Amino acid sequence: MKLTSQDIAAMDTRPRAALVNCLSGFKSANLVGTADVEGRTNLAIMSSAVHLGSNPPLLALVVRPGGDERHTLKNILDTGCYSLNHVHTDMIEAAHQTAACYPPESSEFEKTGLTPHWEEGFGAPMVREARVRLGLQLREHTHLTINGTHLVIGEVVLAELPSASLRADGSLDLVAADSVALTGLDTYHTCIDSKRMAYAKPDLPPRQIE
Amino acid sequence: MKLTSQDIAAMDTRPRAALVNCLSGFKSANLVGTADVEGRTNLAIMSSAVHLGSNPPLLALVVRPGGDERHTLKNILDTGCYSLNHVHTDMIEAAHQTAACYPPESSEFEKTGLTPHWEEGFGAPMVREARVRLGLQLREHTHLTINGTHLVIGEVVLAELPSASLRADGSLDLVAADSVALTGLDTYHTCIDSKRMAYAKPDLPPRQIE
Repeated sequence: MKLTSQDIAAMDTRPRAALVNCLSGFKSANLVGTADVEGRTNLAIMSSAVHLGSNPPLLALVVRPGGDERHTLKNILDTGCYSLNHVHTDMIEAAHQTAACYPPESSEFEKTGLTPHWEEGFGAPMVREARVRLGLQLREHTHLTINGTHLVIGEVVLAELPSASLRADGSLDLVAADSVALTGLDTYHTCIDSKRMAYAKPDLPPRQIE
Repeated sequence: MKLTSQDIAAMDTRPRAALVNCLSGFKSANLVGTADVEGRTNLAIMSSAVHLGSNPPLLALVVRPGGDERHTLKNILDTGCYSLNHVHTDMIEAAHQTAACYPPESSEFEKTGLTPHWEEGFGAPMVREARVRLGLQLREHTHLTINGTHLVIGEVVLAELPSASLRADGSLDLVAADSVALTGLDTYHTCIDSKRMAYAKPDLPPRQIE
């Protein structure tokens, strides 16, 4: 079927949000851990992490204006640090539940049964149950005028990774780490390895390497 | 294992790029179709599409400075339009091969055997073989000073979707559409449905809906 701008604009709010959130394709599923200036913890599921560059190692997060993530954004701007923790299969329920609208004085860690994990010298909580945990320092905060979303750019200053998932070439096997993917607003996926492809060259056909 | 900023900075360029490109988690796999002002087509695999908002339906692409995607970026800025096409299982080889450094006068469509699909009134080629095809109009182009990457923001003005993949609530079943996910620089994944979760509420436990 074909949908035009007019068709999409004419949709009710909820079905439109359900559809448009699926259009980009598969997304990452990360728990973003923060603390406020008094040390109270906060945890929020986000699917908008995107790679910006490797040297320095930079990731961006898209954060909605005034949405459920507003405590997370305030904490990041106040403290300059946050953690990203990959959701794995056994964490899906707890991770999704962090999206519930809890009162600001309660921590999503306590409410969902996940455990804060602190590293010396790093001011935001990680998630002990996660297998891939990243500590980030805020480097840039941009307000996108087009729709009021925030782009939060951070540098990875700490990476805690399962050694068994590291390949010899430096890459991380996210299937072995059991990380899950997200589509739309609510669907969590287990992924399997399909094809690993060799570096593409104009004078060679595509070659699978694994 | 734990890696600090210093550990990551001390890595060789290729293993560092392989690692850092995996840290955000699973990514989308999209072919970006463009044409130059003379109508010559270009096609490039990208894993950086990210959802910005549903009303209007906005997606952002992160494009590297001076990278393989430079023809794509020039075409988008010159013509104001581009297509995003989900890679599915049978398209992985051809999609990956678009990353090869072909001379600017040759089209990745011809080189990889994929077929341009034109819609009346839309100036960029889609990919006929794809099942999820989006037409986008450029809305904003931001240069991220932190590392020279470009943020290309577009509005979805046309969506061609497999009817059988549309759920009653408006969401798109990307497993049914056979879209694949990407990790790192080279690994394509088939995903299976794991869990679909109900809207999270503070006074209810997590509930699976499918």
